[in-house]
Amino acid sequence: MARFIRNKKAKGTAAENELVHKFWENNWVCVRVAGSGSTQFPAPDLLASRGDRRIMMEVKIVNSHKKYFSEQEIKDLEYFSERFGAESWVGICFEGRQWFFLPTAELQKTSAGQSFVADLVEMKRKGFGFEEMIALI
Amino acid sequence: MARFIRNKKAKGTAAENELVHKFWENNWVCVRVAGSGSTQFPAPDLLASRGDRRIMMEVKIVNSHKKYFSEQEIKDLEYFSERFGAESWVGICFEGRQWFFLPTAELQKTSAGQSFVADLVEMKRKGFGFEEMIALI
Repeated sequence: MARFIRNKKAKGTAAENELVHKFWENNWVCVRVAGSGSTQFPAPDLLASRGDRRIMMEVKIVNSHKKYFSEQEIKDLEYFSERFGAESWVGICFEGRQWFFLPTAELQKTSAGQSFVADLVEMKRKGFGFEEMIALI
Repeated sequence: MARFIRNKKAKGTAAENELVHKFWENNWVCVRVAGSGSTQFPAPDLLASRGDRRIMMEVKIVNSHKKYFSEQEIKDLEYFSERFGAESWVGICFEGRQWFFLPTAELQKTSAGQSFVADLVEMKRKGFGFEEMIALI
């Protein structure tokens, strides 16, 4: 279990670092947040900006076709982003290293309505690629 | 040496966490940056916002009356802040737990002109306390 968590955490960090590099390569500035997910205060995983736009993002890596988000997780992200004058996004790396990005406002509620879900089929249809996301005006 | 560095790092993290708490207590949002000072990309130690203001900060804890900053360190902070639409500040905790804050634009150059210096006497005169800093408009 400890090893599983360590590996999962390492994969999450690697995925975040991959995005940090992509933002800088595209002339944005970007940082990873220390202890996001483990501090007592809500915090996104990444903060990025190019001056006129600011993006706060939860980054997930999943080995399946679906990723669930709790309502609190999305609420926290949106609260933080709003206080920062920023857009709130989720970035998900599905199996096969397929990255998709979506503003939290476009996430689907689950049928029970208790949480949000991003599934790969849906994300292929309405999600954004990295370049698309940063090209928005 | 390893122990010295670990202790110094732990003290730095504790000082940063103290400020994170202060910002949240005052209805700002704030995060610590992961790996600031050790990543290949320039990054401040703290990012904070209350919507209309954003502050990016280098946080230092010193056991003396002076703290030096290299020109590059300040340039990097100012570049990052400008790309984020934020103010750039330094926050220094001098011996005796005296905190002072200053916008980087108000830092003094050293007499040799190669770096910047914040000294306790000067900071007592023109530095800001935490509450003063966050009350600025």
